[in-house]
Amino acid sequence: MDVGQVKMNSPLQPIAFQGEAGAYSERAAKEFYREEVIVTIPCRTFGETFAAVHDDKVLAAVVPIENSLAGSVHQNYDLLLKHELHITGEIFLRISHQLMVLPGTNWEQVRRVYSHPQALEQCREFLEKWPALEIVPAYDTAGSAKLLVEHQWRDAAAIASEWAAEKYGLNILHRAIESNQKNYTRFLVLEKGEKTPVKNGKTSIVFSVPHTPGSLFKTLAIFALRDINLLRIESRPLHGSPWEYVFYLDFEGTPQLEPGAKALEHLGEIATFRRVLGTYEKGRVIE
Amino acid sequence: MDVGQVKMNSPLQPIAFQGEAGAYSERAAKEFYREEVIVTIPCRTFGETFAAVHDDKVLAAVVPIENSLAGSVHQNYDLLLKHELHITGEIFLRISHQLMVLPGTNWEQVRRVYSHPQALEQCREFLEKWPALEIVPAYDTAGSAKLLVEHQWRDAAAIASEWAAEKYGLNILHRAIESNQKNYTRFLVLEKGEKTPVKNGKTSIVFSVPHTPGSLFKTLAIFALRDINLLRIESRPLHGSPWEYVFYLDFEGTPQLEPGAKALEHLGEIATFRRVLGTYEKGRVIE
Repeated sequence: MDVGQVKMNSPLQPIAFQGEAGAYSERAAKEFYREEVIVTIPCRTFGETFAAVHDDKVLAAVVPIENSLAGSVHQNYDLLLKHELHITGEIFLRISHQLMVLPGTNWEQVRRVYSHPQALEQCREFLEKWPALEIVPAYDTAGSAKLLVEHQWRDAAAIASEWAAEKYGLNILHRAIESNQKNYTRFLVLEKGEKTPVKNGKTSIVFSVPHTPGSLFKTLAIFALRDINLLRIESRPLHGSPWEYVFYLDFEGTPQLEPGAKALEHLGEIATFRRVLGTYEKGRVIE
Repeated sequence: MDVGQVKMNSPLQPIAFQGEAGAYSERAAKEFYREEVIVTIPCRTFGETFAAVHDDKVLAAVVPIENSLAGSVHQNYDLLLKHELHITGEIFLRISHQLMVLPGTNWEQVRRVYSHPQALEQCREFLEKWPALEIVPAYDTAGSAKLLVEHQWRDAAAIASEWAAEKYGLNILHRAIESNQKNYTRFLVLEKGEKTPVKNGKTSIVFSVPHTPGSLFKTLAIFALRDINLLRIESRPLHGSPWEYVFYLDFEGTPQLEPGAKALEHLGEIATFRRVLGTYEKGRVIE
């Protein structure tokens, strides 16, 4: 856990996340840090979340980067490239969706179900058992829980986290309604300054290669020939250059030690652009 | 152009697309085929669009797979894996957004602007010049044009294609308002049966590799060692196996000819799963 900067007698440290109170991202922040030493700051968009760190309004931000069912959160890959922040940690959180209602509402009264489209999709098998229900996409999961309370809707339910139910005083009627329970989200911790992990280091980089045959193959050779384990590779379009890509790559090791240092040096010979996004300790999985 | 199955004296051939009449996908279908020999069939979701081909309700479907600014349409990658259809063609369409209103409405009356979130994002620089405008996300671009007509809104505008303006009888007030005009979408043509292109063949495959160091590198070596040009690689999570991936890869060549045939044979030695999604002629770019 990366709580090196947070001393027990210091004031609470502000940590930004995107969404409403009770969001999965807020939970990830509270699992990464010790809950009692931080104060979580909700932001409306991912852009605002990154900017809060950049503008020194918060110590760090915790943002989702990848879900084991839905794939990458592409906007955050693009924001990593746009902002000069550093990845200083990561954490994996099991995502489990709960169906919740206002206290006193029972299942027979529910006509509409609100949630984020991705959560609705992940609970499709459950929802298909009640075809009369109206499914209403909402901005986010915790936000749909908040909607019920704000409007005091007694004919509606929300799908969100157990922390959202707790936060808004809602009753959970159906637990863990997702079709596939192997549902994890990886969150990144972003800070302005960089850090060096003391053990289990991994490194995230972004680079682009010339638009010539075999250039990606040569890049992967840099790592394979040094027996460096690649943990993830992701391509994103390069804005302004149709059908050219930047690659985001995670590898085991750090730029401070061999063979990671030599691999990055070698990448510099091939890549048209290259940046280290951060070096950090491999994250824990919170079930 | 892939109009081999469509004879001039035959009945009109039904081609499915996702969205409302006037959608970019419908335009792509009309550019791929000769407009006068097909009838375009709108579908509500991408799932329904794929199913229409599978259930023989249409000859083919035309679906977006990748945008040069926004990246891949992941849902369609997942649907390619789920359905047993074949890619039989592709086409690239320049995406240009128009701001449109009901005839008689002028720009000073407009208080709200409707469009798909991605189109709104692509026109952000234009919209920021009028901060008083309310920006309203809608289900799709052509659908937002249809909304204006249905509700006869004189205080609202929609951002959609010029074909949507034509379809719904709207006036274009501002043309090509996207920030980055290098904005292209690649569409795939899907049919039930497979085809073999006579020239400029390319092949799309999907595969997974064992979760061992260097396995993706070895896969790319199969192509690099045979001087086969890779056109695209994309990873997607493998449902039910957190942090394992399937890879979608496009290469120059076909399974009918060397060296593509040998490369696919070689891939069979390494991959835990492998499927050819289709072989087709490289697509034209429609500006």
